Amino acid sequence: MASHEQTTYPVTPRTTPTRNPDRADYDRATVHAVLDADYICHLGFVADGAPVVLPTLYARVGERLYLHGSTGSRPLREARGGLRVCVTVTLTDGIVLARSAVHHSVNYRSVVVHGTARRITEPSECRTALDAVVDAPFPGRASDCRPPDAKELAKTAVLGLDLEDVSAKARSGGAEEEPEDLDLPHWAGVVPVRRGYGAPVADTGGRAAAEAPLPRYLRHLL
Amino acid sequence: MASHEQTTYPVTPRTTPTRNPDRADYDRATVHAVLDADYICHLGFVADGAPVVLPTLYARVGERLYLHGSTGSRPLREARGGLRVCVTVTLTDGIVLARSAVHHSVNYRSVVVHGTARRITEPSECRTALDAVVDAPFPGRASDCRPPDAKELAKTAVLGLDLEDVSAKARSGGAEEEPEDLDLPHWAGVVPVRRGYGAPVADTGGRAAAEAPLPRYLRHLL
Repeated sequence: MASHEQTTYPVTPRTTPTRNPDRADYDRATVHAVLDADYICHLGFVADGAPVVLPTLYARVGERLYLHGSTGSRPLREARGGLRVCVTVTLTDGIVLARSAVHHSVNYRSVVVHGTARRITEPSECRTALDAVVDAPFPGRASDCRPPDAKELAKTAVLGLDLEDVSAKARSGGAEEEPEDLDLPHWAGVVPVRRGYGAPVADTGGRAAAEAPLPRYLRHLL
Repeated sequence: MASHEQTTYPVTPRTTPTRNPDRADYDRATVHAVLDADYICHLGFVADGAPVVLPTLYARVGERLYLHGSTGSRPLREARGGLRVCVTVTLTDGIVLARSAVHHSVNYRSVVVHGTARRITEPSECRTALDAVVDAPFPGRASDCRPPDAKELAKTAVLGLDLEDVSAKARSGGAEEEPEDLDLPHWAGVVPVRRGYGAPVADTGGRAAAEAPLPRYLRHLL
Protein backbone atom coordinates (compact mmCIF):
# COMPACT_ATOMS: atom_id res chain seq x y z
CA MET A 1 0.00 0.00 0.00
CA ALA A 2 1.26 3.47 -0.83
CA SER A 3 2.12 5.69 2.07
CA HIS A 4 -0.29 8.58 2.34
CA GLU A 5 2.67 10.84 2.85
CA GLN A 6 3.94 10.26 -0.68
CA THR A 7 2.89 12.98 -3.06
CA THR A 8 2.34 10.59 -5.96
CA TYR A 9 0.62 7.26 -6.46
CA PRO A 10 2.85 4.40 -7.56
CA VAL A 11 3.05 3.68 -11.27
CA THR A 12 1.72 0.18 -11.92
CA PRO A 13 1.30 -1.81 -15.15
CA ARG A 14 -2.43 -1.18 -14.89
CA THR A 15 -2.06 2.58 -14.59
CA THR A 16 0.42 2.93 -17.44
CA PRO A 17 -1.66 3.92 -20.47
CA THR A 18 -0.97 2.16 -23.74
CA ARG A 19 -1.99 5.30 -25.60
CA ASN A 20 -0.78 8.87 -25.00
CA PRO A 21 1.29 7.90 -21.93
CA ASP A 22 2.50 11.52 -21.71
CA ARG A 23 -1.01 12.47 -20.60
CA ALA A 24 -0.84 10.29 -17.47
CA ASP A 25 -0.37 11.92 -14.06
CA TYR A 26 0.15 10.18 -10.73
CA ASP A 27 0.20 13.29 -8.58
CA ARG A 28 -2.00 12.81 -5.54
CA ALA A 29 -3.24 16.42 -5.54
CA THR A 30 -4.15 16.24 -9.24
CA VAL A 31 -6.08 13.00 -8.70
CA HIS A 32 -7.89 14.41 -5.66
CA ALA A 33 -8.82 17.61 -7.51
CA VAL A 34 -10.52 15.65 -10.32
CA LEU A 35 -12.32 13.34 -7.91
CA ASP A 36 -13.50 16.25 -5.77
CA ALA A 37 -14.91 18.14 -8.77
CA ASP A 38 -17.65 15.61 -9.51
CA TYR A 39 -20.13 13.32 -7.77
CA ILE A 40 -21.06 10.79 -10.47
CA CYS A 41 -18.55 8.15 -11.49
CA HIS A 42 -18.85 5.22 -13.86
CA LEU A 43 -18.41 1.99 -11.93
CA GLY A 44 -17.28 -1.05 -13.88
CA PHE A 45 -17.35 -4.64 -12.71
CA VAL A 46 -17.60 -8.08 -14.24
CA ALA A 47 -20.87 -10.04 -14.01
CA ASP A 48 -21.19 -13.51 -15.53
CA GLY A 49 -17.95 -12.89 -17.42
CA ALA A 50 -19.16 -9.69 -19.10
CA PRO A 51 -18.40 -6.06 -18.26
CA VAL A 52 -21.06 -3.85 -16.65
CA VAL A 53 -20.74 -0.07 -16.30
CA LEU A 54 -23.20 1.81 -14.09
CA PRO A 55 -23.41 5.51 -13.20
CA THR A 56 -22.91 5.72 -9.45
CA LEU A 57 -22.76 8.47 -6.84
CA TYR A 58 -19.45 8.75 -5.04
CA ALA A 59 -17.40 10.89 -2.70
CA ARG A 60 -13.78 10.88 -1.59
CA VAL A 61 -12.78 10.84 2.06
CA GLY A 62 -9.00 10.91 2.40
CA GLU A 63 -7.58 8.00 0.44
CA ARG A 64 -10.86 6.13 0.13
CA LEU A 65 -13.74 6.46 -2.32
CA TYR A 66 -17.27 5.70 -1.20
CA LEU A 67 -19.72 4.51 -3.84
CA HIS A 68 -23.46 4.73 -3.45
CA GLY A 69 -26.42 4.30 -5.73
CA SER A 70 -26.33 1.42 -8.13
CA THR A 71 -24.57 -0.41 -5.33
CA GLY A 72 -28.09 -1.79 -4.73
CA SER A 73 -27.73 -3.96 -7.83
CA ARG A 74 -27.35 -7.66 -7.28
CA PRO A 75 -23.64 -8.22 -8.05
CA LEU A 76 -22.73 -5.30 -5.83
CA ARG A 77 -24.94 -6.43 -2.97
CA GLU A 78 -23.01 -9.69 -3.11
CA ALA A 79 -19.69 -7.84 -2.83
CA ARG A 80 -19.17 -8.40 0.89
CA GLY A 81 -16.12 -10.50 0.11
CA GLY A 82 -14.79 -7.86 -2.26
CA LEU A 83 -15.55 -7.01 -5.87
CA ARG A 84 -12.98 -6.17 -8.51
CA VAL A 85 -13.96 -2.78 -9.89
CA CYS A 86 -12.76 0.04 -12.08
CA VAL A 87 -14.07 3.49 -11.21
CA THR A 88 -13.72 6.27 -13.75
CA VAL A 89 -14.48 9.98 -13.34
CA THR A 90 -14.36 12.23 -16.39
CA LEU A 91 -14.56 16.02 -16.53
CA THR A 92 -15.04 17.50 -20.00
CA ASP A 93 -13.34 20.86 -20.47
CA GLY A 94 -13.61 21.63 -24.15
CA ILE A 95 -14.19 20.50 -27.71
CA VAL A 96 -11.12 20.87 -29.91
CA LEU A 97 -11.91 21.65 -33.55
CA ALA A 98 -8.93 21.08 -35.80
CA ARG A 99 -8.60 21.96 -39.47
CA SER A 100 -8.49 18.22 -40.29
CA ALA A 101 -11.13 15.71 -39.21
CA VAL A 102 -8.68 13.28 -37.60
CA HIS A 103 -7.22 15.89 -35.23
CA HIS A 104 -10.54 16.80 -33.63
CA SER A 105 -10.34 16.04 -29.94
CA VAL A 106 -11.72 16.75 -26.49
CA ASN A 107 -10.02 18.48 -23.60
CA TYR A 108 -10.71 16.54 -20.45
CA ARG A 109 -9.44 15.48 -17.06
CA SER A 110 -10.13 11.92 -15.93
CA VAL A 111 -9.20 9.59 -13.10
CA VAL A 112 -9.26 5.82 -13.27
CA VAL A 113 -9.17 3.78 -10.05
CA HIS A 114 -8.61 0.02 -10.08
CA GLY A 115 -9.13 -2.12 -7.04
CA THR A 116 -11.33 -4.27 -4.88
CA ALA A 117 -14.41 -2.56 -3.47
CA ARG A 118 -15.85 -3.79 -0.20
CA ARG A 119 -19.27 -3.30 1.34
CA ILE A 120 -19.07 -0.91 4.29
CA THR A 121 -20.92 -2.46 7.20
CA GLU A 122 -19.63 -0.54 10.22
CA PRO A 123 -22.40 1.99 11.04
CA SER A 124 -20.14 4.95 11.81
CA GLU A 125 -18.18 4.56 8.56
CA CYS A 126 -21.45 4.08 6.69
CA ARG A 127 -22.60 7.39 8.16
CA THR A 128 -19.33 9.09 7.17
CA ALA A 129 -19.78 7.77 3.62
CA LEU A 130 -23.41 8.88 3.34
CA ASP A 131 -22.56 12.34 4.67
CA ALA A 132 -19.74 12.66 2.15
CA VAL A 133 -22.01 11.65 -0.75
CA VAL A 134 -24.74 14.10 0.35
CA ASP A 135 -22.14 16.86 0.73
CA ALA A 136 -20.41 16.19 -2.61
CA PRO A 137 -22.45 18.52 -4.85
CA PHE A 138 -23.14 21.14 -2.14
CA PRO A 139 -20.77 21.02 0.83
CA GLY A 140 -22.70 21.84 3.99
CA ARG A 141 -25.86 19.98 3.07
CA ALA A 142 -25.19 16.84 5.14
CA SER A 143 -25.45 18.81 8.37
CA ASP A 144 -28.63 20.56 7.17
CA CYS A 145 -30.99 17.61 6.71
CA ARG A 146 -32.34 14.81 8.88
CA PRO A 147 -29.50 12.36 9.52
CA PRO A 148 -30.07 8.66 8.86
CA ASP A 149 -31.43 6.55 11.71
CA ALA A 150 -30.01 3.11 12.52
CA LYS A 151 -32.55 1.33 10.33
CA GLU A 152 -31.83 3.56 7.34
CA LEU A 153 -28.08 3.14 7.79
CA ALA A 154 -28.44 -0.63 7.86
CA LYS A 155 -30.28 -0.49 4.52
CA THR A 156 -27.74 1.84 2.91
CA ALA A 157 -25.48 -0.04 0.49
CA VAL A 158 -22.13 1.71 0.33
CA LEU A 159 -18.92 0.33 -1.14
CA GLY A 160 -15.46 1.49 -0.09
CA LEU A 161 -12.52 1.53 -2.51
CA ASP A 162 -9.00 2.52 -1.47
CA LEU A 163 -7.01 4.86 -3.70
CA GLU A 164 -3.92 2.82 -4.45
CA ASP A 165 -3.93 1.76 -8.09
CA VAL A 166 -4.95 5.12 -9.52
CA SER A 167 -3.95 7.63 -12.16
CA ALA A 168 -5.18 10.83 -13.77
CA LYS A 169 -5.11 11.64 -17.44
CA ALA A 170 -5.71 14.99 -19.07
CA ARG A 171 -5.65 16.78 -22.37
CA SER A 172 -5.64 20.56 -22.64
CA GLY A 173 -4.74 23.21 -25.18
CA GLY A 174 -5.51 23.64 -28.84
CA ALA A 175 -5.50 21.36 -31.84
CA GLU A 176 -2.46 19.48 -33.02
CA GLU A 177 -2.42 20.13 -36.74
CA GLU A 178 -0.46 18.81 -39.66
CA PRO A 179 1.80 21.71 -40.75
CA GLU A 180 0.36 21.64 -44.26
CA ASP A 181 -3.17 22.14 -42.86
CA LEU A 182 -2.43 25.35 -40.97
CA ASP A 183 -3.47 27.64 -43.79
CA LEU A 184 -6.72 25.87 -44.65
CA PRO A 185 -9.70 28.23 -44.46
CA HIS A 186 -11.61 26.23 -41.81
CA TRP A 187 -12.26 27.77 -38.42
CA ALA A 188 -10.16 26.05 -35.76
CA GLY A 189 -10.03 26.44 -32.01
CA VAL A 190 -11.51 25.27 -28.75
CA VAL A 191 -15.10 25.53 -27.55
CA PRO A 192 -15.05 25.49 -23.73
CA VAL A 193 -17.53 23.12 -22.06
CA ARG A 194 -19.28 24.58 -19.03
CA ARG A 195 -21.19 22.76 -16.34
CA GLY A 196 -23.20 24.62 -13.80
CA TYR A 197 -26.50 24.80 -12.02
CA GLY A 198 -29.82 26.49 -12.69
CA ALA A 199 -31.87 28.31 -10.08
CA PRO A 200 -32.97 25.94 -7.28
CA VAL A 201 -36.63 24.85 -7.46
CA ALA A 202 -38.09 24.53 -3.97
CA ASP A 203 -40.42 21.69 -3.07
CA THR A 204 -43.62 23.19 -1.75
CA GLY A 205 -45.09 19.99 -0.37
CA GLY A 206 -44.20 20.54 3.26
CA ARG A 207 -45.58 23.19 5.53
CA ALA A 208 -42.26 24.51 6.82
CA ALA A 209 -40.27 23.95 3.64
CA ALA A 210 -42.35 26.31 1.54
CA GLU A 211 -41.07 29.10 3.77
CA ALA A 212 -37.56 27.73 4.32
CA PRO A 213 -35.01 30.26 3.11
CA LEU A 214 -32.49 29.11 0.55
CA PRO A 215 -29.57 27.73 2.56
CA ARG A 216 -26.18 29.41 2.35
CA TYR A 217 -24.63 26.52 0.37
CA LEU A 218 -27.13 27.16 -2.46
CA ARG A 219 -27.21 30.96 -2.45
CA HIS A 220 -24.42 31.32 -5.00
CA LEU A 221 -26.75 29.69 -7.56
CA LEU A 222 -29.15 32.63 -7.67
CA MET B 1 -31.51 -9.37 -33.90
CA ALA B 2 -34.33 -6.94 -33.21
CA SER B 3 -36.14 -5.57 -36.21
CA HIS B 4 -35.43 -1.89 -36.71
CA GLU B 5 -39.11 -1.41 -37.32
CA GLN B 6 -40.01 -2.28 -33.75
CA THR B 7 -40.43 0.77 -31.56
CA THR B 8 -38.85 -0.87 -28.51
CA TYR B 9 -35.73 -2.89 -27.82
CA PRO B 10 -36.32 -6.41 -26.49
CA VAL B 11 -36.23 -6.87 -22.72
CA THR B 12 -33.37 -9.24 -21.85
CA PRO B 13 -32.09 -10.55 -18.52
CA ARG B 14 -29.13 -8.20 -18.86
CA THR B 15 -31.28 -5.13 -19.42
CA THR B 16 -33.67 -5.84 -16.56
CA PRO B 17 -32.37 -3.76 -13.64
CA THR B 18 -32.20 -5.40 -10.24
CA ARG B 19 -32.84 -2.02 -8.64
CA ASN B 20 -35.62 0.47 -9.46
CA PRO B 21 -36.92 -1.59 -12.40
CA ASP B 22 -39.71 0.96 -12.85
CA ARG B 23 -37.07 3.41 -14.09
CA ALA B 24 -36.13 1.21 -17.06
CA ASP B 25 -37.27 2.17 -20.56
CA TYR B 26 -36.81 0.16 -23.75
CA ASP B 27 -38.33 2.69 -26.11
CA ARG B 28 -36.12 3.15 -29.14
CA ALA B 29 -36.77 6.90 -29.43
CA THR B 30 -35.95 7.42 -25.74
CA VAL B 31 -32.68 5.50 -26.08
CA HIS B 32 -31.73 7.39 -29.25
CA ALA B 33 -32.48 10.76 -27.64
CA VAL B 34 -30.11 10.06 -24.74
CA LEU B 35 -27.37 8.77 -27.02
CA ASP B 36 -27.70 11.74 -29.37
CA ALA B 37 -27.43 14.26 -26.52
CA ASP B 38 -23.82 13.44 -25.65
CA TYR B 39 -20.52 12.52 -27.28
CA ILE B 40 -18.53 10.94 -24.42
CA CYS B 41 -19.47 7.49 -23.21
CA HIS B 42 -17.84 5.23 -20.65
CA LEU B 43 -16.63 2.08 -22.34
CA GLY B 44 -16.21 -0.99 -20.15
CA PHE B 45 -14.37 -4.16 -21.09
CA VAL B 46 -12.50 -6.95 -19.32
CA ALA B 47 -8.70 -7.10 -19.48
CA ASP B 48 -6.76 -9.86 -17.71
CA GLY B 49 -9.94 -10.74 -15.84
CA ALA B 50 -10.46 -7.27 -14.39
CA PRO B 51 -12.85 -4.52 -15.48
CA VAL B 52 -11.56 -1.43 -17.27
CA VAL B 53 -13.67 1.70 -17.87
CA LEU B 54 -12.39 4.39 -20.24
CA PRO B 55 -13.98 7.65 -21.40
CA THR B 56 -14.45 7.35 -25.14
CA LEU B 57 -15.86 9.50 -27.93
CA TYR B 58 -18.84 8.02 -29.68
CA ALA B 59 -21.65 8.72 -32.12
CA ARG B 60 -24.80 6.89 -33.16
CA VAL B 61 -25.60 6.13 -36.79
CA GLY B 62 -28.92 4.34 -37.05
CA GLU B 63 -28.79 1.25 -34.88
CA ARG B 64 -25.02 1.22 -34.50
CA LEU B 65 -22.70 3.06 -32.13
CA TYR B 66 -19.23 4.03 -33.26
CA LEU B 67 -16.55 4.36 -30.59
CA HIS B 68 -13.38 6.34 -31.05
CA GLY B 69 -10.61 7.55 -28.81
CA SER B 70 -9.35 5.16 -26.22
CA THR B 71 -9.93 2.51 -28.85
CA GLY B 72 -6.21 2.95 -29.40
CA SER B 73 -5.52 1.09 -26.16
CA ARG B 74 -4.03 -2.36 -26.44
CA PRO B 75 -7.02 -4.58 -25.58
CA LEU B 76 -9.17 -2.63 -28.00
CA ARG B 77 -6.65 -2.73 -30.79
CA GLU B 78 -6.79 -6.48 -30.41
CA ALA B 79 -10.58 -6.49 -30.76
CA ARG B 80 -10.71 -7.48 -34.40
CA GLY B 81 -12.35 -10.74 -33.43
CA GLY B 82 -14.86 -8.93 -31.23
CA LEU B 83 -14.67 -7.57 -27.70
CA ARG B 84 -17.39 -7.91 -25.08
CA VAL B 85 -18.18 -4.38 -23.95
CA CYS B 86 -20.64 -2.35 -21.94
CA VAL B 87 -21.13 1.24 -23.08
CA THR B 88 -22.83 3.67 -20.71
CA VAL B 89 -23.95 7.24 -21.39
CA THR B 90 -25.19 9.36 -18.50
CA LEU B 91 -26.85 12.78 -18.63
CA THR B 92 -27.21 14.53 -15.28
CA ASP B 93 -30.34 16.68 -15.02
CA GLY B 94 -30.55 17.74 -11.39
CA ILE B 95 -29.54 17.28 -7.78
CA VAL B 96 -32.45 16.25 -5.56
CA LEU B 97 -32.20 17.58 -2.00
CA ALA B 98 -34.58 15.78 0.35
CA ARG B 99 -35.35 16.63 3.95
CA SER B 100 -33.66 13.38 5.03
CA ALA B 101 -30.12 12.38 4.08
CA VAL B 102 -31.07 8.98 2.67
CA HIS B 103 -33.55 10.39 0.16
CA HIS B 104 -31.06 12.67 -1.56
CA SER B 105 -30.80 11.67 -5.18
CA VAL B 106 -29.88 12.72 -8.69
CA ASN B 107 -32.16 13.21 -11.68
CA TYR B 108 -30.55 11.63 -14.69
CA ARG B 109 -31.08 9.85 -17.98
CA SER B 110 -28.74 7.01 -18.87
CA VAL B 111 -28.38 4.33 -21.51
CA VAL B 112 -26.51 1.07 -21.09
CA VAL B 113 -25.55 -0.96 -24.16
CA HIS B 114 -24.21 -4.50 -23.86
CA GLY B 115 -22.69 -6.34 -26.77
CA THR B 116 -19.67 -7.29 -28.81
CA ALA B 117 -17.78 -4.41 -30.38
CA ARG B 118 -15.86 -5.01 -33.59
CA ARG B 119 -13.09 -3.02 -35.20
CA ILE B 120 -14.35 -1.24 -38.31
CA THR B 121 -11.94 -1.91 -41.16
CA GLU B 122 -13.95 -1.05 -44.26
CA PRO B 123 -12.75 2.46 -45.31
CA SER B 124 -16.16 3.88 -46.22
CA GLU B 125 -17.72 2.80 -42.93
CA CYS B 126 -14.65 4.11 -41.10
CA ARG B 127 -15.23 7.45 -42.81
CA THR B 128 -18.92 7.41 -41.87
CA ALA B 129 -17.94 6.73 -38.26
CA LEU B 130 -15.32 9.46 -38.11
CA ASP B 131 -17.70 11.99 -39.67
CA ALA B 132 -20.37 11.08 -37.11
CA VAL B 133 -17.94 11.49 -34.20
CA VAL B 134 -16.71 14.87 -35.51
CA ASP B 135 -20.33 15.99 -36.02
CA ALA B 136 -21.58 14.80 -32.63
CA PRO B 137 -20.95 17.98 -30.59
CA PHE B 138 -21.57 20.41 -33.48
CA PRO B 139 -23.53 18.96 -36.40
CA GLY B 140 -22.20 20.38 -39.63
CA ARG B 141 -18.53 20.36 -38.65
CA ALA B 142 -17.58 17.16 -40.48
CA SER B 143 -18.25 18.78 -43.85
CA ASP B 144 -16.33 21.92 -42.83
CA CYS B 145 -12.84 20.52 -42.22
CA ARG B 146 -10.28 18.58 -44.22
CA PRO B 147 -11.58 15.02 -44.63
CA PRO B 148 -9.29 12.12 -43.74
CA ASP B 149 -7.05 10.74 -46.47
CA ALA B 150 -6.61 7.00 -47.02
CA LYS B 151 -3.56 6.81 -44.76
CA GLU B 152 -5.31 8.62 -41.90
CA LEU B 153 -8.39 6.41 -42.26
CA ALA B 154 -6.26 3.29 -42.07
CA LYS B 155 -4.76 4.52 -38.79
CA THR B 156 -8.14 5.45 -37.29
CA ALA B 157 -9.24 2.89 -34.72
CA VAL B 158 -13.03 2.79 -34.60
CA LEU B 159 -15.20 0.15 -32.99
CA GLY B 160 -18.77 -0.59 -34.03
CA LEU B 161 -21.40 -1.81 -31.59
CA ASP B 162 -24.93 -2.73 -32.62
CA LEU B 163 -27.83 -1.48 -30.52
CA GLU B 164 -29.57 -4.72 -29.59
CA ASP B 165 -29.12 -5.38 -25.89
CA VAL B 166 -29.88 -1.87 -24.70
CA SER B 167 -32.02 0.03 -22.23
CA ALA B 168 -32.51 3.52 -20.87
CA LYS B 169 -33.03 4.44 -17.26
CA ALA B 170 -34.16 7.76 -15.86
CA ARG B 171 -35.12 9.53 -12.69
CA SER B 172 -36.97 12.83 -12.69
CA GLY B 173 -39.08 14.90 -10.34
CA GLY B 174 -38.69 15.89 -6.73
CA ALA B 175 -37.63 14.11 -3.58
CA GLU B 176 -39.41 11.08 -2.22
CA GLU B 177 -39.83 11.88 1.44
CA GLU B 178 -40.96 9.98 4.49
CA PRO B 179 -44.36 11.49 5.41
CA GLU B 180 -43.13 12.37 8.89
CA ASP B 181 -40.25 14.40 7.41
CA LEU B 182 -42.40 16.71 5.33
CA ASP B 183 -42.64 19.41 7.96
CA LEU B 184 -38.97 19.51 8.88
CA PRO B 185 -37.49 23.00 8.47
CA HIS B 186 -34.82 21.98 5.94
CA TRP B 187 -34.93 23.41 2.44
CA ALA B 188 -35.89 20.71 -0.06
CA GLY B 189 -36.14 20.73 -3.82
CA VAL B 190 -34.22 20.22 -7.01
CA VAL B 191 -31.17 22.09 -8.30
CA PRO B 192 -31.13 21.78 -12.10
CA VAL B 193 -27.80 20.79 -13.65
CA ARG B 194 -26.91 22.69 -16.81
CA ARG B 195 -24.31 21.83 -19.37
CA GLY B 196 -23.41 24.24 -22.10
CA TYR B 197 -20.57 25.90 -23.94
CA GLY B 198 -18.51 29.01 -23.43
CA ALA B 199 -17.54 31.41 -26.21
CA PRO B 200 -15.38 29.70 -28.85
CA VAL B 201 -11.65 30.52 -28.68
CA ALA B 202 -10.16 30.71 -32.17
CA ASP B 203 -6.73 29.31 -32.91
CA THR B 204 -4.63 32.05 -34.41
CA GLY B 205 -1.76 29.88 -35.57
CA GLY B 206 -2.76 29.67 -39.21
CA ARG B 207 -2.78 32.51 -41.69
CA ALA B 208 -6.30 31.95 -42.98
CA ALA B 209 -7.84 30.72 -39.73
CA ALA B 210 -7.21 33.96 -37.88
CA GLU B 211 -9.62 35.60 -40.27
CA ALA B 212 -12.02 32.68 -40.64
CA PRO B 213 -15.50 33.75 -39.56
CA LEU B 214 -17.20 31.70 -36.86
CA PRO B 215 -19.05 28.95 -38.74
CA ARG B 216 -22.84 28.78 -38.56
CA TYR B 217 -22.82 25.65 -36.36
CA LEU B 218 -20.99 27.62 -33.63
CA ARG B 219 -22.76 30.97 -33.91
CA HIS B 220 -25.41 30.11 -31.32
CA LEU B 221 -22.61 29.98 -28.72
CA LEU B 222 -21.93 33.72 -28.85
